Amino acid sequence: MVAGKTAICTVGHEGAGLTYRGYDIADLAAHACFEEVAHLLIHERLPDRQELEAYRNKLRAARTLPLKLIGVLEALPGSTHPMDVMRTACSVLGNLEPERDFSQQRDAADRLLGVLPSAVLYWQRFHGDGVRIDTDSGEDGTAAHFLHLLHERSQSDAHCRALDVSLTLYAEHEFNASTFTARVIAATLSDLHSAVTGAIGALRGPLHGGANEAAMELIDRFDSPADAEQGVRDMLSRKELVMGFGHRVYRESDPRNAFNKRMARQLAEEAGDMRLFEISEAIERLMWSEKRLFANADFYSASVYRYLGIPTHLFTPIFVCSRVTGWCAHVFEQRADNRLIRPRAEYTGPAAQPWVPLESRP
Amino acid sequence: MVAGKTAICTVGHEGAGLTYRGYDIADLAAHACFEEVAHLLIHERLPDRQELEAYRNKLRAARTLPLKLIGVLEALPGSTHPMDVMRTACSVLGNLEPERDFSQQRDAADRLLGVLPSAVLYWQRFHGDGVRIDTDSGEDGTAAHFLHLLHERSQSDAHCRALDVSLTLYAEHEFNASTFTARVIAATLSDLHSAVTGAIGALRGPLHGGANEAAMELIDRFDSPADAEQGVRDMLSRKELVMGFGHRVYRESDPRNAFNKRMARQLAEEAGDMRLFEISEAIERLMWSEKRLFANADFYSASVYRYLGIPTHLFTPIFVCSRVTGWCAHVFEQRADNRLIRPRAEYTGPAAQPWVPLESRP
Repeated sequence: MVAGKTAICTVGHEGAGLTYRGYDIADLAAHACFEEVAHLLIHERLPDRQELEAYRNKLRAARTLPLKLIGVLEALPGSTHPMDVMRTACSVLGNLEPERDFSQQRDAADRLLGVLPSAVLYWQRFHGDGVRIDTDSGEDGTAAHFLHLLHERSQSDAHCRALDVSLTLYAEHEFNASTFTARVIAATLSDLHSAVTGAIGALRGPLHGGANEAAMELIDRFDSPADAEQGVRDMLSRKELVMGFGHRVYRESDPRNAFNKRMARQLAEEAGDMRLFEISEAIERLMWSEKRLFANADFYSASVYRYLGIPTHLFTPIFVCSRVTGWCAHVFEQRADNRLIRPRAEYTGPAAQPWVPLESRP
Repeated sequence: MVAGKTAICTVGHEGAGLTYRGYDIADLAAHACFEEVAHLLIHERLPDRQELEAYRNKLRAARTLPLKLIGVLEALPGSTHPMDVMRTACSVLGNLEPERDFSQQRDAADRLLGVLPSAVLYWQRFHGDGVRIDTDSGEDGTAAHFLHLLHERSQSDAHCRALDVSLTLYAEHEFNASTFTARVIAATLSDLHSAVTGAIGALRGPLHGGANEAAMELIDRFDSPADAEQGVRDMLSRKELVMGFGHRVYRESDPRNAFNKRMARQLAEEAGDMRLFEISEAIERLMWSEKRLFANADFYSASVYRYLGIPTHLFTPIFVCSRVTGWCAHVFEQRADNRLIRPRAEYTGPAAQPWVPLESRP
C-alpha cells in the first residue's frame, strides 16, 4: 500500500539499501556524526563546519529540563515502562512549551532532540539510583551525553562513537509504523508534540521498536554458541517467533546490520569478552541456514548496547532519541503539502439490524 | 484508499448513512443512552437492563482520579490546550495503571471512559475557578456527570439528554484520522493507552476534532442572520475555508446533522434565545445554495454545546469523552487479527548523492 510521497528516505530501492535525502547510509555511518544527520533530516541539508558547531551548541542548550517536567518524572512510578515515560515526557513538554503555530517548528524539533534523552535518563537515575542528576552534561554529542548521564562520567571515544553510529542508523526509515503514525496525526494539522507522542506510542510495540529488547532477551537465554544453536532450533520447531530477523520491506539483507555487527565485534574484542558476540553470530548463522532470514538492524544493536553498559529497558528509548529526527522531518514534509489521511475500511460486520428496546433484549 | 477491514461501523453505505455494529444511528440517537452505545462498541453488544445497570455502576466507579494524576493536572499550566491536557492525562494513566497484557483490555477501556471526563474537568475547574472538585458526582450517565462537574450541580434532564445524544452521535466513525492513528499504533502490539494518547493527538487537529470549535468561532463572529449571510459570502469570495461543512466520506448529507439541528432548535426555544440558532441556519442555507455543501456533525453541535453552557475550548475534549469508545473498539478489533500497518511511500527526493566531507561543503 503506497500511502504518500516522501523526499526524505529510500528503503530497499535497487542499488541503494537505505538513503537519507540521497546520502547512502554507508557514507553517513562511516563519516557523519549524529548531529550532522539530525541537521540533514530536520534542517534539510548537511551543515558546514560553522553551522555544525552552532547546531551542537543549540542542542546542548536544549538539554535542560523544565522544572515542571522534572516534577512529573519524579512523580511517575519507577516501575513504569520507560517508553511510557518518554510518551508522557513528550506530551508534558507540549503542555509547557506548546507549538503555537508552525513557524517555529524546527526549534520545537531541536528542543525535543535535547529534552528526550535528558528526560528518560533523569527518570532512570532518580528511580534507579535515587539521585537527582544535572542533565547539562557538557558533552558535545547526543551519544556522549546519553552515556555520561547514564554512567555519571564521560565514556571512551570508542563507546561514544559506537552509540553515535547507532543513532545515525536508527534516525530515519521512510513510512515505518511510528513515522506513519506521526504523519497521520500531523495531517489533521495537529501540533508537533502530538505527532511525536503518538509515534513514541507506536514505536513502543514489540513488532516495531521493541524488537531490539526482545533480541537481547533471546540472546541472554543462552550460555554458549552451541546452546544458542540448539535453543533456537527448538524454538523454530515449536514455530516460535525469533525476534531481530527479517524485515517487512528489505528482502535480501538489512543494510544497517553490517555496521552493527562490526561494532559489536569491536566492542567485544575491546572488552575481552566474545561470548555475547559469538552467541549472536551462532543465532544469525542458524536463522540464515534454516529460514533464509537475515539479521535486521535490531539484532546486533542489542549486543552493541549491552557492551556499552546500557540496561535492556533503555534500548527502545535510545531508538526514540534517534528517530525523533526522522519523525519531525516527516511531520514538516506532511505539513508542507498537506491532505488529511483518512482511509476507508472494507465492512465485514452485521447487516442492518432492527432496533431492539432494552426490555426486549434476550 | 482501503486500509483494512472493520465490523464496527459503516459510513455512507447505500441506504444507511451511519451504523454502529449494524444499528442505525437514527435508532441509537432516538432510543439508546450513551452507556448502551459504549457497551455496544466496547463489549460488542447491546446490554440487557441488568447488564446496563451493572455497566453504569462500573463506569461510575471508574471516575475517581488517581492522586498522582491529580498532581499532574494541577502542575500543568492553566493556559495549556485542553486537548493537550487530555493527551497527557491518558498517557499518565498508562504510567499509573499500565495495561500489562491484553487480557484486561476492556476494563482498561472502561477506566478511560470514566477517567477522561473527570480529568479534563478537574483541570478546568482547578485552573479556571481555583477549586479542587470531587469527581465522584454520583450522576448516573456520562453526560449528566460531565455537566454536573462543569456547572457544580445537576443539570435539567433536557440538557443531560442533549449531551447524551451528542456523545452517541460522536462515538464512532470508521477509519477517521484519529481512529486510524489508534489502529496503526495498536498494530505494533503497543498498549491501549499509547493508542488512545495518539488518537487524542490526532483529534486535536483543526481538520478533525477541532472543527466544532472552529464552527463556534465562526458563528460567534456574527450578530444576526443577515450579518452572517453577508460575512460568509465575503469569506467565500476570499476563498476562505468555512468550517463545519462537507465531509471527506459523505457526499449528500451528514446523517448526524438532523439530530444536532433539532436539538439546537429545542434548546434555543427552551432558552428563549433563537439568535445563535438562526445565525447557524442562515449560514447553513447559504453554504448549500452557494457551494452545495451540507452542514456536518460539527456545525450544529457547536450551538448545542453553547446552549448547554459549555465553554468552546471544551468542545473537542467532549469529542474525546465520546470517541474513546470507538477508538477502543477498533484497537480490540485490530488486535484480534493483527498485521503491522507499514505502508510504502513514493520517493520524490534527490537521486543518490556522493558524500561531501565537512570541510568541502559549500
